[in-house]
Amino acid sequence: MFFASDNAGPVHPQIMNRLAQANSGHAMPYGNDAIMDEVRDAIRTTFEAPEAAVYLVATGTAANALALACYTQPWQTIFCSVTSHIHEDECNAPEFYAGAAKLTMVETDDKMTPEALTKAIEKHPEGNVHGAQRGPVSITQVTERGSVHSLEELNALTAVAKRYDLPVHLDGARFANALVALGCSPAEMTWKAGVDVVSFGGTKNGCMGVEAVIFFDPAKAWEFELRRKRGAHLFSKHRFLSAQMAGYLQDDLWRATARQANDNARYLADGLRAAGATMLHEPDANMIFAKWPRRIHQKLQAAGAKYYVMDGPLDSGDPDTPLSARLVCDWSVGTEAIDQFLSYF
Amino acid sequence: MFFASDNAGPVHPQIMNRLAQANSGHAMPYGNDAIMDEVRDAIRTTFEAPEAAVYLVATGTAANALALACYTQPWQTIFCSVTSHIHEDECNAPEFYAGAAKLTMVETDDKMTPEALTKAIEKHPEGNVHGAQRGPVSITQVTERGSVHSLEELNALTAVAKRYDLPVHLDGARFANALVALGCSPAEMTWKAGVDVVSFGGTKNGCMGVEAVIFFDPAKAWEFELRRKRGAHLFSKHRFLSAQMAGYLQDDLWRATARQANDNARYLADGLRAAGATMLHEPDANMIFAKWPRRIHQKLQAAGAKYYVMDGPLDSGDPDTPLSARLVCDWSVGTEAIDQFLSYF
Amino acid sequence: MFFASDNAGPVHPQIMNRLAQANSGHAMPYGNDAIMDEVRDAIRTTFEAPEAAVYLVATGTAANALALACYTQPWQTIFCSVTSHIHEDECNAPEFYAGAAKLTMVETDDKMTPEALTKAIEKHPEGNVHGAQRGPVSITQVTERGSVHSLEELNALTAVAKRYDLPVHLDGARFANALVALGCSPAEMTWKAGVDVVSFGGTKNGCMGVEAVIFFDPAKAWEFELRRKRGAHLFSKHRFLSAQMAGYLQDDLWRATARQANDNARYLADGLRAAGATMLHEPDANMIFAKWPRRIHQKLQAAGAKYYVMDGPLDSGDPDTPLSARLVCDWSVGTEAIDQFLSYF
Amino acid sequence: MFFASDNAGPVHPQIMNRLAQANSGHAMPYGNDAIMDEVRDAIRTTFEAPEAAVYLVATGTAANALALACYTQPWQTIFCSVTSHIHEDECNAPEFYAGAAKLTMVETDDKMTPEALTKAIEKHPEGNVHGAQRGPVSITQVTERGSVHSLEELNALTAVAKRYDLPVHLDGARFANALVALGCSPAEMTWKAGVDVVSFGGTKNGCMGVEAVIFFDPAKAWEFELRRKRGAHLFSKHRFLSAQMAGYLQDDLWRATARQANDNARYLADGLRAAGATMLHEPDANMIFAKWPRRIHQKLQAAGAKYYVMDGPLDSGDPDTPLSARLVCDWSVGTEAIDQFLSYF
Repeated sequence: MFFASDNAGPVHPQIMNRLAQANSGHAMPYGNDAIMDEVRDAIRTTFEAPEAAVYLVATGTAANALALACYTQPWQTIFCSVTSHIHEDECNAPEFYAGAAKLTMVETDDKMTPEALTKAIEKHPEGNVHGAQRGPVSITQVTERGSVHSLEELNALTAVAKRYDLPVHLDGARFANALVALGCSPAEMTWKAGVDVVSFGGTKNGCMGVEAVIFFDPAKAWEFELRRKRGAHLFSKHRFLSAQMAGYLQDDLWRATARQANDNARYLADGLRAAGATMLHEPDANMIFAKWPRRIHQKLQAAGAKYYVMDGPLDSGDPDTPLSARLVCDWSVGTEAIDQFLSYF
Repeated sequence: MFFASDNAGPVHPQIMNRLAQANSGHAMPYGNDAIMDEVRDAIRTTFEAPEAAVYLVATGTAANALALACYTQPWQTIFCSVTSHIHEDECNAPEFYAGAAKLTMVETDDKMTPEALTKAIEKHPEGNVHGAQRGPVSITQVTERGSVHSLEELNALTAVAKRYDLPVHLDGARFANALVALGCSPAEMTWKAGVDVVSFGGTKNGCMGVEAVIFFDPAKAWEFELRRKRGAHLFSKHRFLSAQMAGYLQDDLWRATARQANDNARYLADGLRAAGATMLHEPDANMIFAKWPRRIHQKLQAAGAKYYVMDGPLDSGDPDTPLSARLVCDWSVGTEAIDQFLSYF
Repeated sequence: MFFASDNAGPVHPQIMNRLAQANSGHAMPYGNDAIMDEVRDAIRTTFEAPEAAVYLVATGTAANALALACYTQPWQTIFCSVTSHIHEDECNAPEFYAGAAKLTMVETDDKMTPEALTKAIEKHPEGNVHGAQRGPVSITQVTERGSVHSLEELNALTAVAKRYDLPVHLDGARFANALVALGCSPAEMTWKAGVDVVSFGGTKNGCMGVEAVIFFDPAKAWEFELRRKRGAHLFSKHRFLSAQMAGYLQDDLWRATARQANDNARYLADGLRAAGATMLHEPDANMIFAKWPRRIHQKLQAAGAKYYVMDGPLDSGDPDTPLSARLVCDWSVGTEAIDQFLSYF
Repeated sequence: MFFASDNAGPVHPQIMNRLAQANSGHAMPYGNDAIMDEVRDAIRTTFEAPEAAVYLVATGTAANALALACYTQPWQTIFCSVTSHIHEDECNAPEFYAGAAKLTMVETDDKMTPEALTKAIEKHPEGNVHGAQRGPVSITQVTERGSVHSLEELNALTAVAKRYDLPVHLDGARFANALVALGCSPAEMTWKAGVDVVSFGGTKNGCMGVEAVIFFDPAKAWEFELRRKRGAHLFSKHRFLSAQMAGYLQDDLWRATARQANDNARYLADGLRAAGATMLHEPDANMIFAKWPRRIHQKLQAAGAKYYVMDGPLDSGDPDTPLSARLVCDWSVGTEAIDQFLSYF
């Protein structure tokens, strides 16, 4: 009954196999391994982007912070949602990598709106040397509240960015979960929608620790390589990053694990609704925000279920008061664990 | 015939096994996994340091830059050898992590001397607001020229640092190779010798990508955790860093692989000498710097041997002119490959 | 009719005289001039703080950014009002000086409230390595909307900070204007109210370009000196900063000019109200936010009056629509200019 | 008898007069004052550079650090002399402003040589992601040892930089002293010699605290403005920087004060030689490095003479041992003080 995060699940066997295969003899270090050539080709094909610059790092925060740094001057501000991972969960890494730039919160409870984005940008008039200057727009897909922007919504946001000539970053730590939810192509969810650079997540969806950073315009390639090295994120035994990503892409594993995670979440959400819980956000992908009475939380936690209770306290107060929770399903959560979880309701 | 670097070799099977074992079900992320508890205990025992704060990161540059940052103010300078990895091979990562601090070169061809270190420190008088302030001393063991400081030499250097009340960092990317060369205990080569924090390397010696940072005084523990997260070096699926280090420490594998690497290097060095090559530095551990005629280089490279030729050009000039080379042996290089290499002389 | 800012007025003759007096022969550079000793003593006496560390810089942004940097770690966030100068008007200088720290907006239209401050702090739970850590609280007195916190209000804010063990910075670019508005002592508005460090402004109140940074606990003294030098804010011919501050403090000139500025603003505000303008904030010191019909703005601007129109456009639209304006009075604005200004209503 | 530094002298009366004249009524802040227009024109004319971007800051360190930052990426290294002010006397300000870039020492005792510069650049091969990347070359004119590069020497250095496509910065804290020593035009010593940006010093040569930064290619103009603001170096009452620079340029005052300073130094140097002192560097401008017996130093210091004794101790040891000293003459040092000084020999 582990629903605390999709970053706590196991590595998919197909990826473990690729790691084992890669572990033969010597290989050129620092991204010059042959598997990386295979990965680069596979990603360019998958994204219909034959010119894209493709790099691997081991953490999602590294992917985001390095990608954004390539598009942010130290005197600029990055426009992001108040719930975004780059603002809430990266301990100032984006600011650090962007040379002490600022993050400006676009007012929203979940998905950014074009209106709120426009308002945030307009607060920073051009040519005013005193304020932070306009920088990139960072969109999170899946959002940290479990929502998925439709292609229309994405395009509306990037249209605002383009109107102000601002680059667009997509935090795709759960890229695959969003993609299978929308049923569109990777190109449609990225460069065709006006995205300049994407953090393409692997770790939360069955890898050990690997994320790709994909620049659709390769002009930033060398700068990224220098920033990655300077950030201490260039792996000497890089083939083991490459092997993970190769295994992840092989035979569309990445879509399969994402579909499984989303299906698990839907199954759990249906069960929760049937058991009387209230959904706080509509779960578009593999994250559920819901509330139910304290006494059921107490039973679940006593039984060892792992998930975040977002208000509290858990251990005292009216047992009928509903408390909010976040539940995340990764690909490996089976219906058995979900049924067991629901049995406590 | 791969002697380009010990960071290009395979992962030892014992470590691969530990990764496979760790890959079962869910585990708490971000260093809260149970294997990390095991690793912490093992390192504390190994270093006879029951209070030490122990952390894992995935690259040697991250270990060095984060460890140094905890002991360096932005207005200070780090004292290091001109050949040190932190100066030559980390693309300003130490400066980046230390908030734009400076590195001051201690004049030396290889190992730092107490006299040269004293001279470098004395150039930065206390209380002079105009110059960079004195910061930590960073010692590389094994040096980038393949030398190992004796315990006497180490103690003499740290004595200088202590005289000026400066902290000491040990870059131990090849810690194990140095240790087995000296035949001393980890404690003797670190805290008993006045070292405050050590980068304890795993990657070059049979791991996939893991280094421990060990603070003998745990006062910096929380600061390190924040710096690691801010640097994007905190792994969500941390158990796979832990598992590598657990496998590395288990049954003293780390000493065995280091011994093998050093033995390989000695075997190669003996062969080179016998073949008429000239040693440029005495190889104390697993690195060899030697020179031999251009024509032999040409044959070796044509045969696919991988190593660095440090002067050149390789392809033209007097075939009898000696050219310098760097050769590094990792644990997996067998005598067969070495014999094959030597056969071209 | 210059009401655009109090940073555009002339230097008071008493200060010009001190500059001229100081300009005799050679003087020790870098803050070692004799006038600085006089200034330090005068400030310690004025603030009833015999141990205070006192430094001079030339700009308000330098005073704020350097003072805050001494109390902020790069992984922390500074709590400030959304209208604060450090957030809106310093082009990321606080972030730059604090090593890429974050600024967290305390929700408010003008003065910070203890509730809003508490809420902002509580959003950053202790011990959560993923989010920005709690850093100092920065209070602006006079606020950028022209309001002055009462001593009760100040004490309530610092009480919140102290409850969380957070240091308190006071941005006193208009310190004197606030002080004479409250009629309290400098000690009451600073250390007796729980302020740890204050930017004590001179530039906007009759100086040429000088601000004092006053640490009530001198523990940060040497760090400040290094940060000031590293920021390129240590003046070689420092005596000319000292002379300004000496002239400013002499015979309470600073209170006199502030009183004059506040009186000017009150006279202008009374006139505006009498002329039918609407006050947007009650002007506690020397800044006025008010609105009146577009057609009167058009006449005023045509006549050369200088002030900020905060919405618009000025040149087209219904002539009766009220537009908001910011008017700032410095000490040198006379009633003649004000009467002239009011004559256009 | 004040020879400690030219940054400790008084402000020239002509500049004080311009400050007094500027102090009338209100003026637009932040560099939008009318006097700045006059200064910009005067500098463009003086440098025969009608397109140059011209900015003022108050300290030499700010001028250097901001100018260099515009040409340095954080992963690059700045090539400078080991005696340069940016390395020895700016407490890591260049590193801070350049986002944690490195400084690489060009080996030299005084003036940089093309050979040493080439060697330093060649140590950083292109395309090597592991090392610091090549950044700008910074030349100091007058050097910190009192030497002036001839135009031939300057051109030889910039030719090296251009060969590697590296920008060139000239630290001209003593620009005027060098210029009058060479008897050439400002254009010849800057853009005609391949300099891209110059710190044009005023403070050491009769101003209160002002330096111009002149970009011969205005492409960096807006970036500089943002960096200056972010560094807290944009003055609100900017007219008082402008007025200093206007007074400095008026009727070639800057050349006159520099000539006076150089003449003073020559008079002093001749006297020292006549008195038996040994010159350590040939004094090309207004700085003298010489040595003479300890006992004469003791007499001089007892008499209140101010200058740096560079070895020591002063107070004990053989009275006949020669000790080295640095003496700097500013424009205001008269022959009377020099004669008095020489009388102790």
